[in-house]
Amino acid sequence: MVGMKIHIVYAHPHTASLNAALRDEAVRTLEGLGHTVTVADLYAMQWKAVADFDDFGPTENEAFMPAAGEAWEQGEIAADVKAEQARLLAADLVILQFPLWWYTVPAIMKGWIDRVFTNGFGYGTSRDWPRFGDGVLKGRRAMVVVTTGAAESHLSDRGVNGDIDSLLFPLQHGVLFYTGMEVLPPVVVTSAHPGFSASDYADAVKDLRSRLETFAETAPVAYRRQAEDYDDDKRLKPGLEPAGTTGFALHLA
Amino acid sequence: MVGMKIHIVYAHPHTASLNAALRDEAVRTLEGLGHTVTVADLYAMQWKAVADFDDFGPTENEAFMPAAGEAWEQGEIAADVKAEQARLLAADLVILQFPLWWYTVPAIMKGWIDRVFTNGFGYGTSRDWPRFGDGVLKGRRAMVVVTTGAAESHLSDRGVNGDIDSLLFPLQHGVLFYTGMEVLPPVVVTSAHPGFSASDYADAVKDLRSRLETFAETAPVAYRRQAEDYDDDKRLKPGLEPAGTTGFALHLA
Repeated sequence: MVGMKIHIVYAHPHTASLNAALRDEAVRTLEGLGHTVTVADLYAMQWKAVADFDDFGPTENEAFMPAAGEAWEQGEIAADVKAEQARLLAADLVILQFPLWWYTVPAIMKGWIDRVFTNGFGYGTSRDWPRFGDGVLKGRRAMVVVTTGAAESHLSDRGVNGDIDSLLFPLQHGVLFYTGMEVLPPVVVTSAHPGFSASDYADAVKDLRSRLETFAETAPVAYRRQAEDYDDDKRLKPGLEPAGTTGFALHLA
Repeated sequence: MVGMKIHIVYAHPHTASLNAALRDEAVRTLEGLGHTVTVADLYAMQWKAVADFDDFGPTENEAFMPAAGEAWEQGEIAADVKAEQARLLAADLVILQFPLWWYTVPAIMKGWIDRVFTNGFGYGTSRDWPRFGDGVLKGRRAMVVVTTGAAESHLSDRGVNGDIDSLLFPLQHGVLFYTGMEVLPPVVVTSAHPGFSASDYADAVKDLRSRLETFAETAPVAYRRQAEDYDDDKRLKPGLEPAGTTGFALHLA
């Protein structure tokens, strides 16, 4: 399949980092496959990280969330936010690439999430807002590409850091799946520190390329859809899970 | 117990919000008990959210994490970061108060974490860096105070959002416990939207006051300490958990 559109949202402060090299490999690979790639390089763009009233036009609402909603209704949203929303709507695949800082995205990428997925676009205050499997970005796929200084064992099922799939759940389930996207398994590059060797890099590139070559047919993470598996209180209907399942595992079919 | 020091790190863009009212109640309550309170009001301070090379003095290191480490060694860290580190070191209790945005802290508070817990202070690159129960802030307590628009059922054990304890795990375990603090159960104010009533507010204040009055004797969350319960690969030693335990629950004793 050629001619698809991929939007890469990228955050790293060092222009010659491992992350930058992997981003360039991703762009080359995807363009080589005949796709069109856009990149939001958040540090290079000096992306405004902090969501505040300056993101909206004049508003009579003093409360933040209603003010955001009113600005959305009136089309009075900051231009940089509108541009990112347009890129997301145009994309077939959205990639978030970042170094894992304190078990989640760097602040500048959190600010991309906070500001782009504003009230009216990313979420609504109505209890029947379509989400978790439905939403504004339904029909698109998403994939996290993350580097971490931790070794693989530290992020494994019994690792002290917490297992990587659970650590990424609030982002993958709570942001990407929430807005309707199908979430592909993440590309995780571990032990990304000064000891990372040329051989480690070659392995990481091989893995990344393979995932990009197959993104359209890769099975997404099987998160349960709110519209089907949850009751009116948004609780998982009884009996759907294997006995004894707890925590985030409940939300996987 | 009187005369303790509490540092509140606070993030909300609206100066007359529910969060602001709860923060003021917290300050009044704690001062009324004879404690000393400092507040980092991140929006009011126009806290710099983005960690970048501007946080360091001149460095020959091009890579970000080594540059941060070198700046720490030489005392060349931004003044706002140093001031927050000093407040944390002086505190008996650290409170992080914020609205839950996309299942974690707002970007400005993530930027407080990214910048204050810099290489050399909050973490180190050595494999024997003391963490998860030990660390620079050992001896202190920490508590999250969070508001969320979601209803309680949405964040309950079977709620579609994910259960709140798991959602807060990367912050509570991965940041607060990582740096050595004992983490108290969070104060969670649900259904914080325009329908939040005077009676809801009174309940929230009552709960918050009670938690502040008892913070010194409240039992912390029983996260397992890395120094005792994990092997050299930082994996949980076999047989410590009830059969069938998976995910973040493994890290609770």
